[in-house]
Amino acid sequence: MGVQKKVSIAVIRRLPRYYRYLADLLRMDITRVSSKELSARMGITASQIRQDLNCFGGFGQQGYGYNVEALYKEIGEILGLSNNYQTIIIGAGHMGKALANYTNFEKRGFKLIGIFDVNPEIIGTKIRGIEIMHMDRLEEFVSNNKVDIAILTVPYDQTPSVADRVARLGIKGLWNFSPMDLKLPYDVIIENVHLSDSLMVLGYKINEKLKAEKGAKKTKNSK
Amino acid sequence: MGVQKKVSIAVIRRLPRYYRYLADLLRMDITRVSSKELSARMGITASQIRQDLNCFGGFGQQGYGYNVEALYKEIGEILGLSNNYQTIIIGAGHMGKALANYTNFEKRGFKLIGIFDVNPEIIGTKIRGIEIMHMDRLEEFVSNNKVDIAILTVPYDQTPSVADRVARLGIKGLWNFSPMDLKLPYDVIIENVHLSDSLMVLGYKINEKLKAEKGAKKTKNSK
Repeated sequence: MGVQKKVSIAVIRRLPRYYRYLADLLRMDITRVSSKELSARMGITASQIRQDLNCFGGFGQQGYGYNVEALYKEIGEILGLSNNYQTIIIGAGHMGKALANYTNFEKRGFKLIGIFDVNPEIIGTKIRGIEIMHMDRLEEFVSNNKVDIAILTVPYDQTPSVADRVARLGIKGLWNFSPMDLKLPYDVIIENVHLSDSLMVLGYKINEKLKAEKGAKKTKNSK
Repeated sequence: MGVQKKVSIAVIRRLPRYYRYLADLLRMDITRVSSKELSARMGITASQIRQDLNCFGGFGQQGYGYNVEALYKEIGEILGLSNNYQTIIIGAGHMGKALANYTNFEKRGFKLIGIFDVNPEIIGTKIRGIEIMHMDRLEEFVSNNKVDIAILTVPYDQTPSVADRVARLGIKGLWNFSPMDLKLPYDVIIENVHLSDSLMVLGYKINEKLKAEKGAKKTKNSK
């Protein structure tokens, strides 16, 4: 893989996208791809693509393009997808249930092994064969199973205390769906998901378009 | 608001975060904040914050900080949150239901007015008072109601055809939860949400940490 430079988080955040596009190419039995072709598909400039992939030691050959399968595997390795991380979901409300039913994560090497909640009505029921357990059993479960990632889908006000409890158990990563940027004084890696941020960006883009259309109309009318 | 420069998408994507942090400050009755204080809270450098907010004409005063309420309102305006966009959800599976139950979007000015599906078992049932309608009624509904955004939570293979149908109806924005980067030949704004990308980034960070720990152990043992 060559010498690794310090890779920026912006590049890392693009890797899953490369990974998805390469998976699409593999499905289409395409074995080679140039940065130019990838650029046209992905809407990233070819020079940006070459620069990104060079961070990891340069997989491509000038004028020859990238070997799709090799690049796909390499990016999977960089992302650590072969580690087969085990996950638990804490909070089996609507979002917790939706994520528990999302089989796509398993395809990427993230296996759901437990679901926790405090609602007596759903404890003991199963989602895709996985039992919903009471939060009281969390410590016992984590000490008996290798749990790498806790997916937090608990109400806003309970997020800090649950996150704290999970972090103390030595779980390595938290995937947080509560609309707060979680920070903890422990050695735990946190990835915050803010769905409404994405919706607000969409709102911004629509607003900009509406303003541009209004502007164009005004200009037209004033002629 | 001063003269607007062309603002990069990276800055735009940070605005919802500023908006959330400022909302937190308002809740705490904090009326002024310096870029340094914001920096400590948000984990963005103070100079980055000043640069970001300057893009929109400079809200702050040197040595005096930002007026929290004014900045909050201004960013809300820039994001177009006062537009009160109306949304529909297409696909009332697990994720569609989770999003329909997510009242946070409404607080940001995005109102859900319709839900569509093809499953006869759920058609006619309601989520938060909003009826799930058959897809056959989509065209009629959109012509009788102002629909700004369609939230797509349909299965992967149906995404392109549903997106195409929605775009033809003149809906301005698509918020796509299918794990494909949707592109359409129409004048429609698309925001793709890739939850597994975020999970893969978390996996990457854990992997890097594990590698670092292994490296540290080896160095220790070889001494």
